[in-house]
Amino acid sequence: MNNSNFYDVTKCDFGNPYEDIGKVINDIIAEVKVKQAKSCSNGNGKPGAVIYLPPADYHLKTQVVIDISFLKVVGSGHGFTSSSIRFNVPKKDWSNLHELWPGGSRIINDLPVDSTSSEKTGAAFLVERDGDPRISSVEFSNFNIDGLHFVDDGANDDNPENSYVNNKTGIYVASAQDSFRITGMGFIYLEHGIVVYHADALTIHNNFIAECGNCIELRGWGQASKVTDNLMGAGYKGYSIYAQNFAQLLVSTNNIFPRGASTIYFEQVTRSLLSNNILHAFYPGMVVLKKVSSENLISSNHFLRDHEPWQPMQTHDNGIVDSYGLLAIDGNNNTVTNNHFSEIIDKKYLKPSGVTPVIIHVVDGSSNYISNNNVVASEAHSEIGESAFKSQVGALLTTQQSSVIQTINVLIEKNSRNNTILDSGTDEQILLDKSVNAIRFTPKVPNGEKIL
Amino acid sequence: MNNSNFYDVTKCDFGNPYEDIGKVINDIIAEVKVKQAKSCSNGNGKPGAVIYLPPADYHLKTQVVIDISFLKVVGSGHGFTSSSIRFNVPKKDWSNLHELWPGGSRIINDLPVDSTSSEKTGAAFLVERDGDPRISSVEFSNFNIDGLHFVDDGANDDNPENSYVNNKTGIYVASAQDSFRITGMGFIYLEHGIVVYHADALTIHNNFIAECGNCIELRGWGQASKVTDNLMGAGYKGYSIYAQNFAQLLVSTNNIFPRGASTIYFEQVTRSLLSNNILHAFYPGMVVLKKVSSENLISSNHFLRDHEPWQPMQTHDNGIVDSYGLLAIDGNNNTVTNNHFSEIIDKKYLKPSGVTPVIIHVVDGSSNYISNNNVVASEAHSEIGESAFKSQVGALLTTQQSSVIQTINVLIEKNSRNNTILDSGTDEQILLDKSVNAIRFTPKVPNGEKIL
Amino acid sequence: MNNSNFYDVTKCDFGNPYEDIGKVINDIIAEVKVKQAKSCSNGNGKPGAVIYLPPADYHLKTQVVIDISFLKVVGSGHGFTSSSIRFNVPKKDWSNLHELWPGGSRIINDLPVDSTSSEKTGAAFLVERDGDPRISSVEFSNFNIDGLHFVDDGANDDNPENSYVNNKTGIYVASAQDSFRITGMGFIYLEHGIVVYHADALTIHNNFIAECGNCIELRGWGQASKVTDNLMGAGYKGYSIYAQNFAQLLVSTNNIFPRGASTIYFEQVTRSLLSNNILHAFYPGMVVLKKVSSENLISSNHFLRDHEPWQPMQTHDNGIVDSYGLLAIDGNNNTVTNNHFSEIIDKKYLKPSGVTPVIIHVVDGSSNYISNNNVVASEAHSEIGESAFKSQVGALLTTQQSSVIQTINVLIEKNSRNNTILDSGTDEQILLDKSVNAIRFTPKVPNGEKIL
Repeated sequence: MNNSNFYDVTKCDFGNPYEDIGKVINDIIAEVKVKQAKSCSNGNGKPGAVIYLPPADYHLKTQVVIDISFLKVVGSGHGFTSSSIRFNVPKKDWSNLHELWPGGSRIINDLPVDSTSSEKTGAAFLVERDGDPRISSVEFSNFNIDGLHFVDDGANDDNPENSYVNNKTGIYVASAQDSFRITGMGFIYLEHGIVVYHADALTIHNNFIAECGNCIELRGWGQASKVTDNLMGAGYKGYSIYAQNFAQLLVSTNNIFPRGASTIYFEQVTRSLLSNNILHAFYPGMVVLKKVSSENLISSNHFLRDHEPWQPMQTHDNGIVDSYGLLAIDGNNNTVTNNHFSEIIDKKYLKPSGVTPVIIHVVDGSSNYISNNNVVASEAHSEIGESAFKSQVGALLTTQQSSVIQTINVLIEKNSRNNTILDSGTDEQILLDKSVNAIRFTPKVPNGEKIL
Repeated sequence: MNNSNFYDVTKCDFGNPYEDIGKVINDIIAEVKVKQAKSCSNGNGKPGAVIYLPPADYHLKTQVVIDISFLKVVGSGHGFTSSSIRFNVPKKDWSNLHELWPGGSRIINDLPVDSTSSEKTGAAFLVERDGDPRISSVEFSNFNIDGLHFVDDGANDDNPENSYVNNKTGIYVASAQDSFRITGMGFIYLEHGIVVYHADALTIHNNFIAECGNCIELRGWGQASKVTDNLMGAGYKGYSIYAQNFAQLLVSTNNIFPRGASTIYFEQVTRSLLSNNILHAFYPGMVVLKKVSSENLISSNHFLRDHEPWQPMQTHDNGIVDSYGLLAIDGNNNTVTNNHFSEIIDKKYLKPSGVTPVIIHVVDGSSNYISNNNVVASEAHSEIGESAFKSQVGALLTTQQSSVIQTINVLIEKNSRNNTILDSGTDEQILLDKSVNAIRFTPKVPNGEKIL
Repeated sequence: MNNSNFYDVTKCDFGNPYEDIGKVINDIIAEVKVKQAKSCSNGNGKPGAVIYLPPADYHLKTQVVIDISFLKVVGSGHGFTSSSIRFNVPKKDWSNLHELWPGGSRIINDLPVDSTSSEKTGAAFLVERDGDPRISSVEFSNFNIDGLHFVDDGANDDNPENSYVNNKTGIYVASAQDSFRITGMGFIYLEHGIVVYHADALTIHNNFIAECGNCIELRGWGQASKVTDNLMGAGYKGYSIYAQNFAQLLVSTNNIFPRGASTIYFEQVTRSLLSNNILHAFYPGMVVLKKVSSENLISSNHFLRDHEPWQPMQTHDNGIVDSYGLLAIDGNNNTVTNNHFSEIIDKKYLKPSGVTPVIIHVVDGSSNYISNNNVVASEAHSEIGESAFKSQVGALLTTQQSSVIQTINVLIEKNSRNNTILDSGTDEQILLDKSVNAIRFTPKVPNGEKIL
């Protein structure tokens, strides 16, 4: 038995880590439990262990099940590279490519899932434990989890690798837990990157989560957690960040790129802070507050919505029309201030045809405070490209717009009352019932020259 | 002698690290000094060393004294679990608990302190050095410091483990220093988590500091430092963040939970930035600027004040009345913008009885700029719970308030002049002398329906 | 051949790492390539490697050339200490100093450069690879790169160590790349700390980059990257952050200290977010948007401009006059909200003599939205000091100003139209053509007492 609680998976005697890292880690956990069976005395506890994954390809054929606190799994490389770009390169060109796969300390989720499998059974790492106390301080750091392939979803894309569907999950935390940390990781080609139920004091920080169906899903309920400083972007069917029944959630300093059916989707999320993020999307419904999400502060975010520039993905979108809003709110007493919105899209791409796009949309609820948001909207005349990277950068840098687009900066539905709207648009740009809402329009340029 | 500057405390010959990690680390430091005694030539310096703590329980009976630069102490697990919850579980139930103690790479502060000991003598790690240059680049990363127990403070709580008093400190930096880093750590059951005098370019990032009397105390004076992306919460007697005579302090992207007599307490702090934080507290006096704290920017923070929902702690508070304010300012030329305040509390809990609670209170000073702050206030009718976690989450998610509470959103005392108050409340919600301050009230809903 | 992909440079057989770490790392990379030459099958890729540098002084005489993905270079100590202070201590006092040089895991850039060398040939680490895919997921973490000395630049400083010139670079990424990470590093005494061309999804997080000619330069073009939570400060000739043709750049939660000719300098940077930073400088031109930088959000930053308090550097500045502005904008549709500006300087230091200093200056472009910025300006009567640290702290903490300075809070040049300026100054403090811009002045105190 290893006397230390440090385990290098390439140097311990639990089988071949490259063939089935899952079995190796489960055996390590079993050994740690034997060590910890000694009674706790003199303030001594059950310190857990650290499992180290040097850079390598580790196939995972057995699901890792974590049911002890204080376990840290750590690698030396988040290992992201774009599989999506590569899968859309003609196969004849693959022999010229430097690499074909992600790397670093890379766990390849080879679990035998099919279309009937659950998200849970398809998870490389399952954390689950009943009883008290809640499982605490499990940490995942600086390695890669790769789902390898997406599969045919029966839809109209002739490349199944573009489906974002494979019933594979990276990390699935099924039971209430405390003080977990997921930092410096890479997630790729998983239908679900991170799923966490019943989170308390969770940290998801400085990760790279991209080309996943969904990136982060916080389910059940939770409190006092942070999702900060991540680079991420989900597929066109899923969420970059989803949260449910959550309070005191800090979503800040993230750079979230497309696609993502929704960049951020909250259901009954309260007293949370969504600030200081770069949010970029190709569809309306970028940030959605649902089911009476209330008393949140949405401040100092940069929203950009433009049109999908990359040919292989242009057949897809999230099905939401442009009258829905980039930010849609069902809730009370939210504060929405100091956000910048750029809506840069040719009129021909707006849906339905001829619609005036909505930016901030209060769908339901009351007493929201919406102040000092600035909206820029224009046609783009961007070019469609075969290279994902070059076409995106080209589009992003184009700000010499040919013509301005009219927008509804703020739309307050009839059933919503007592909202306060300040300095977020002129009278042409704001639709609301002035008899039941408070409004101060942004001053206009005297000579009427200003349209935006 | 170890030829390398890497020391695994479980693999070096300086005694038993589990019995007294302090002696082991001090012996390592002594060896490093011998190595460094060689004169510096060819640009070679004194590179220091790294001391690695694999996950384990390490009793500390001898204080670690660090007086060399470039020393890094690093573990593999911040190891937090709630001792506070466990100490309030009946002892008869302990045998059913999975774990009783924090874990990870855990240093147990067993220093022989009593009520006459100083904070300094009770510190697990003491950093102190005279002369020039200031000691630089000491780093603490990813381990746990546990004070184990609180002790009877003579007050009215029959559980001494709830006192937040034990004269123990985690890290105590006594002398001026430069470019220190404290990252990824866990601190628990210490009367003082981190105390730093005379900081320059200090980083306190991504730590877990909870169930400590005080979390972070920056004393003496200091400049150009950051406290970012931490999860923390002090006890009802102390500060989550305290700073004194500090300039250019960045406190951002933290998620600070209760209790904390004050969440943030500044004395003569100038030209600093307090932004983008989730701040949750059970008492008034959440953020306090004292002794002419001036030219600070307080922006985009989410303040929530509600009532203590957890029975074992309901006998305690910080003694501050509700007319004091959630944010109290003594200082000049501060900018307070874009903050959201939720005051969610049943009227029966307000002190003194019948008081109208104050949100932003300018106690003294002049020329502050207070703009676009939104206040939500209502009764909660929350339930009191035996489980800390469930009762908190239940309270946090309750936003279907039965009745609105009247608040004074901004109170400017008579001696304070030349302040500018914009869009932070209606005329009923702001108290100030209009002849010596500039004011623009938030527009009201025309039909008078809006009360908030 | 090492069977693992973990390399400790002090324990492998590629020569003496202390004498030439560059050669050792290049030999390791060559070995990794041999290992990776096996064809990729079964989803296996080219996982790369990790190269570990324990704390020590490593001279680098051969440039490291990285042309494989998934390589991580990691140390155990960022090792910053101020060389600038030490080089301005009289030599006779050096024998009393505890240390003379930076430390930690320290790479000493000994490349044989001279005044004709290029930035690229003087780089300790050069990353360059042609073809597809772009090189990905190279990571640099927690070590120090030291340029050792600056050299005589022919200017008027009799101490060549104050020139910030030596043709040495820390990390130079010459070709397009994806998902790189630079975290926890220290950079010192390099003319260029980090130079990256054509960045995508780059992370520069929690580094210490100081006493460098320039800290971070993002050149060519790039997208979707973040520069967050860094402590840094360039020399008086260079940039702390420079970016060119960049979109979706997140610059947030940094604490940037002087000097820096410009703290942040953007050329054609679009749809980016500059928020939540502490920015401190000794000259005008702190943040400059050039060449039609558009649709950016600049929010919740704390700007402080004061006078150089440290004698050895007082002969230097950036040559920009005070009518240029602390924030100068050439671009369209930028949003500038909620920033605090402190201009604390004795009138005698303003240039040209008698000038009214400008704070926000729209030099060219149209349709910018400038709202709720607060400006504080006063004389300082600060003292000049011989100690860099004490004189700075003294100056920073002085807020008992003797007299207010008049400022132009916002200056809109004649050629710039359609801008909206709200609540950012009174009519005396804003200069613009009201017929082509929208303006709402900050309300004044009724009795006219208020000057600020």
